[in-house]
Amino acid sequence: MGYRDELDTPALVVHEEILERNLKGMADFAREKGIAMRPHFKTHKTSEVARMQKEAGAIGITCAKIGEVEALVEAGVLGDYFIANEVIGPLKTSRLVALMEKVNLRVAVDSVEGAQGLQEAMAEANKTLDVIVEVNTGQDRAGVLPHEVLPLAEKIRESMPSLRVVGLMTHEGHAGKTMSQEDLTATATDAGTKMVTTAELLREHGFDITTVSVGSTPAAFETTQIEGITEMRPGTYVFQDNTIFRFGKIGPDDCALRILATVTSRPAPDRAVLDSGSKVLTVEPSQWREGYGYILEYPDAEIVSLSEEHAVVKLPESMQGMKIGEKVEVIPNHVCPTVNLTDELFVVRDGEVTQTWPVIARGRVR
Amino acid sequence: MGYRDELDTPALVVHEEILERNLKGMADFAREKGIAMRPHFKTHKTSEVARMQKEAGAIGITCAKIGEVEALVEAGVLGDYFIANEVIGPLKTSRLVALMEKVNLRVAVDSVEGAQGLQEAMAEANKTLDVIVEVNTGQDRAGVLPHEVLPLAEKIRESMPSLRVVGLMTHEGHAGKTMSQEDLTATATDAGTKMVTTAELLREHGFDITTVSVGSTPAAFETTQIEGITEMRPGTYVFQDNTIFRFGKIGPDDCALRILATVTSRPAPDRAVLDSGSKVLTVEPSQWREGYGYILEYPDAEIVSLSEEHAVVKLPESMQGMKIGEKVEVIPNHVCPTVNLTDELFVVRDGEVTQTWPVIARGRVR
Repeated sequence: MGYRDELDTPALVVHEEILERNLKGMADFAREKGIAMRPHFKTHKTSEVARMQKEAGAIGITCAKIGEVEALVEAGVLGDYFIANEVIGPLKTSRLVALMEKVNLRVAVDSVEGAQGLQEAMAEANKTLDVIVEVNTGQDRAGVLPHEVLPLAEKIRESMPSLRVVGLMTHEGHAGKTMSQEDLTATATDAGTKMVTTAELLREHGFDITTVSVGSTPAAFETTQIEGITEMRPGTYVFQDNTIFRFGKIGPDDCALRILATVTSRPAPDRAVLDSGSKVLTVEPSQWREGYGYILEYPDAEIVSLSEEHAVVKLPESMQGMKIGEKVEVIPNHVCPTVNLTDELFVVRDGEVTQTWPVIARGRVR
Repeated sequence: MGYRDELDTPALVVHEEILERNLKGMADFAREKGIAMRPHFKTHKTSEVARMQKEAGAIGITCAKIGEVEALVEAGVLGDYFIANEVIGPLKTSRLVALMEKVNLRVAVDSVEGAQGLQEAMAEANKTLDVIVEVNTGQDRAGVLPHEVLPLAEKIRESMPSLRVVGLMTHEGHAGKTMSQEDLTATATDAGTKMVTTAELLREHGFDITTVSVGSTPAAFETTQIEGITEMRPGTYVFQDNTIFRFGKIGPDDCALRILATVTSRPAPDRAVLDSGSKVLTVEPSQWREGYGYILEYPDAEIVSLSEEHAVVKLPESMQGMKIGEKVEVIPNHVCPTVNLTDELFVVRDGEVTQTWPVIARGRVR
């Protein structure tokens, strides 16, 4: 009967042909550049897409939390994992040790205290852990500054025999916040250069740095232009979203994930209400466009506000034919937290629902 | 060992003594005013708190979506329900009919088209449904304007024999967006007056209007001052949150739900990172205070940005002792979407985890 009639709303729909094109595009790029792909799981949180990424050549999967790795391992996805985040506290390090029985695991570190916690857990378990130093290349979130990397690595080498510093990572998320292609390229180039220079310094001091890893979909094609970057960790590229449109390379037709929503109220000629509120779209802003999502059938309409179960739409004069009961598809501003709000993705091919993928790591924030 | 050591983070912790005080406070107020309590389920989404609300005297439960009612019915909470939202489309009306076999149910209507869909489903099932007309008292979300209520009610009475117009509802959410007690009172008074006047007009035209229902925790004590309001539907009052502080009547000690978080990075003297990112706190802004949550132990610190698994905290000079591995409790800006991100609430009494409540309607947005 067609997915738009079949599915109750709001529902997260994945257009599989677009997903496949996005997966292939990034995999081909990485292969041509000779850069290892270690895509980030956080965007899709499904074992199905993780397997598709590995089949497309990914050397392993990046996760943000131990719980994400656990969910994938429970689903039978083994192999190589990188937790691109600091793992802090004994409740978490004991889970790390348990996971290391099943998969290869690396984690990020950005402090002596954090590394010390890992050291203690590894020593007790009689294991060695490969760690990747997180470098702050300008985002000012976590990570040490480039000039602080060598002292931290040396401290680990000197006093933490169960850890091995094998690489560097950065999340150049600040590049993705720029508003022009020129600024994006400049910021990504700066981040990539800092990474390669720092890796070289560590090598001069005897470290065997084999991984120089960058992340972030908006900057994926730019940071990786720097000679010496060995690995990329894009996440959003699988689905793309409204926020990434602004650089002009990505448009609505590249967005694989959409929220199927129903018009539930038409209280005024210029106002409509959809049933996709903040509990499905999230209130994340778009950086280039007003509103809380892009309505494919009404591109000039603006979702002006969200409450939990209502999306209030302002309709321009040319688009006031929207009717109660009508279904529309909305591209979210930020796809990652949207996926994290639902238990399943409905996969559509040739206009029919062909599969339902459970979001196995939804809410696995620990 | 104490909940702060026992629980891995981030975790949503409910301080049960505060919850009980909040439940009692609102129940006592409603009883003294002679107003029926029909609290909104969306805030807590647990059967445990719904039962506590009923034990405190609630005549029934308000839900936003059919899926919320279904979750409660599955958990054995029967009785009286009101869906304070438009129910649109045959996939939903067939679920309504099924639920009506188990519980008493009323729904909101704000259009002829929406009412017609309900009429068709009820006629086919040989049932009668009590409907409540949603009135737009100024929020400009869904709902008809006060002068449009009588024509809609008459249309339903004339042509939809399976529906019975028994009441009016409004969500005076716009009152809760004001910034002073004076504006809050004025806006709530205006909303309440419109409701009572409209109800009177319908009665003059032969409608037996027994329910005149208002919602919204921030305005709960104000809208209900208008003689003729019969029912209130507060939600947030059970946990309270950072956004409600601004009127001065509610403070951190009244907030029952807190996110227990761990400091995972201290990259600079004035910067810390917590493991409670937007996938647990949400990026909802507070209306009175910068930042994405109120850190109880560091009230002058500001959560300046959230990414999915990171909360970046700016520490003032007086509060730079925050250490990696330290745990803190964060009061969220808006508690309702925060609860909707997690699968369980950890209930604490006398410093110990005494229960784990499943968030049974998490993600039940359909």
